[in-house]
Amino acid sequence: MEPVLFYGVPQGCSFGSIVALEWLGKPYRLCRMEMMEQPWDARFAKVNPRFKTPALLTEDDETLSESLAILLHAASRNPEHPLGVRHGSAEADRLHQMLSYLVSDFFAAFNPLWVLYDGAAGIGPLADKGVDASHQELLLTVARTDIAEQCAYLDGLLADRQWLLGERSVADAYLAGVGRWVAYHNRNYGLFELEGAYQNLAGYLRRLDDDPAVQFARAIERGEQPVGQGHFKGHVSLRELESRLVA
Amino acid sequence: MEPVLFYGVPQGCSFGSIVALEWLGKPYRLCRMEMMEQPWDARFAKVNPRFKTPALLTEDDETLSESLAILLHAASRNPEHPLGVRHGSAEADRLHQMLSYLVSDFFAAFNPLWVLYDGAAGIGPLADKGVDASHQELLLTVARTDIAEQCAYLDGLLADRQWLLGERSVADAYLAGVGRWVAYHNRNYGLFELEGAYQNLAGYLRRLDDDPAVQFARAIERGEQPVGQGHFKGHVSLRELESRLVA
Ligand SMILES: N[C@@H](CCC(=O)N[C@@H](CS)C(=O)NCC(=O)O)C(=O)O
Ligand SMILES: N[C@@H](CCC(=O)N[C@@H](CS)C(=O)NCC(=O)O)C(=O)O
Repeated sequence: MEPVLFYGVPQGCSFGSIVALEWLGKPYRLCRMEMMEQPWDARFAKVNPRFKTPALLTEDDETLSESLAILLHAASRNPEHPLGVRHGSAEADRLHQMLSYLVSDFFAAFNPLWVLYDGAAGIGPLADKGVDASHQELLLTVARTDIAEQCAYLDGLLADRQWLLGERSVADAYLAGVGRWVAYHNRNYGLFELEGAYQNLAGYLRRLDDDPAVQFARAIERGEQPVGQGHFKGHVSLRELESRLVA
Repeated sequence: MEPVLFYGVPQGCSFGSIVALEWLGKPYRLCRMEMMEQPWDARFAKVNPRFKTPALLTEDDETLSESLAILLHAASRNPEHPLGVRHGSAEADRLHQMLSYLVSDFFAAFNPLWVLYDGAAGIGPLADKGVDASHQELLLTVARTDIAEQCAYLDGLLADRQWLLGERSVADAYLAGVGRWVAYHNRNYGLFELEGAYQNLAGYLRRLDDDPAVQFARAIERGEQPVGQGHFKGHVSLRELESRLVA
C-alpha cells in the first residue's frame, strides 16, 4: 500500500514532509488534520499517541512520527535518488546534524510565539491564565532573541551556497515549511523583517517559494487543486485507514 | 586518532553522549567546556560555530554537532554491538523517532527554565530585561505544563518496558542526561516531583543512575577521578587540538 502522510494545518511543520515526498517522487497519499479543532479525532492516537503531525503510515503499515524520522525514512527508500541517503557516510552525518538542528533549536525558537497564538485561541499552557500584554512582551522578547540567533546562523551558512548542505537535501524541504514562520509571526506579532538583516536566508526562502513542490504543498494546505507530478494519489480519511491502523 | 567529545558543564545534555561512548566501548577522549564562563574560547568556533555542546571531533578529524547526529554516528561505528544501528531497518526508524522526540520536544520543554536560569546569571534573552517575579511565574507555568506532558508520555511508554525502545539504545543514554533536569529544576524552581505522578519514569531514571556508565559520566562532570572500563583515554584541551581543527 502507498504510505500516507498525516499533515496538519494551518502552518504545520509537516509542510516540509509534503515537499520532500514530491521531490522524492514515489507514490503517496495524504490525510489532513485541522490542528486548531481540538480535541482531534481520537483514532489519531493509533497514528501518534502524542497527537502531533507530521506522522507517516508506511508502506508496511508501521506508524512513524517526528519530521526527522519521516524525512530520513523517505530519503532512505530511494538511495540512488539525488536526495537519497547513504547511511554511514560523512554526508549522512551532515544531514543528521542539519535536520536535528532544524527540528530542535530552530523549531523551538518559535515555541513562545505558538504559546501566545494558542493562548489567544484558549488552548495550550496559557489556556487558564489568559494572555495579557506583559505575557506577550516577555514571550516576544525571548522568541525574538532566539529566532534572530537562528536566522543569523543560517544566513551565514547560505552566504556561499544555494542549499543548506551544498547539494539539495530533505533538510531544505523541512526548512521550506518552518522558515515561513519568520514572516508569519512578523505579520502576527511584529517579530522582525527577514529582508535586510538576513538577505541570504530571505533569498533562499524566496527561491524555495518558487519550487514546484513547495507550490504543490501550498495548494494542498489551502485546500486547492494541486498541480503535482503524479506521485500524490489523493487524500484519505482516518476512517478509511482504520483497517491499516492495527496497533 | 581517537574521537574527541566536547562536553559542557554544568548539567549539559552532552552527558548522554558520554554515557553512550562508555556503553559503546571504543576509545575516545574528552574536552571540557565551562558553559557559564562566557564568552567561550574563540577556537571553539572551528568545532561548532553555534558554540553548543556536545560536539565531536571524529576519528577522521571531521567536526559533528547535535546530540542526535553524534549518537547515531557513534552507534553506527559499531553495527554488531547490541547498541549498534542497522540503517534502513524498522528499528532504525524507531531510534530516529525517539531520538528526535527527545532532542526536540522533550528538550525544548525546559527552555523557559534555562531562560530564567541564564537571566539570573545575566546572560541570554533576559540579560538586558532582568528577571522579575512575573517573568518567573509565566515561564514556570509554560514550562511546567509542557514538561508534565512530556513526562506523562514517557511514563506511559515505560509502563511495560525497561528501556525506551524495549531494548537498550543510545536514546536511553541521552535521556540519562536530560531526564535529570526535572529533579534539578524542581530544586531550582519547585517544578514538580517526579515520584508519585510519574513512577515508571522515576524508576527508570533511578535504574539509570546506578548504571556504571552514568556514574562514570557523573564523576567526569564533577571533575572527580572516574572509574570507567578503559575506553576513556583522558582529557585534551582546545589548544592541544588546534592542529586537528583545520577547517
Ligand atoms: N518534534 C516534532 C514536532 C511536531 C509538532 O509539534 N507538530 C505540530 C505542528 S508544527 C503539531 O502537530 N501541533 C499540534 C498540537 O500540538 O496540537 C517534529 O519534529 O515532527
Ligand atoms: N540541539 C542541540 C542542543 C545543544 C545545546 O543547546 N547544548 C547546550 C547544553 S545542554 C549548550 O551548549 N549551551 C551553551 C550555550 O548556549 O551557551 C543538541 O541536541 O545537541
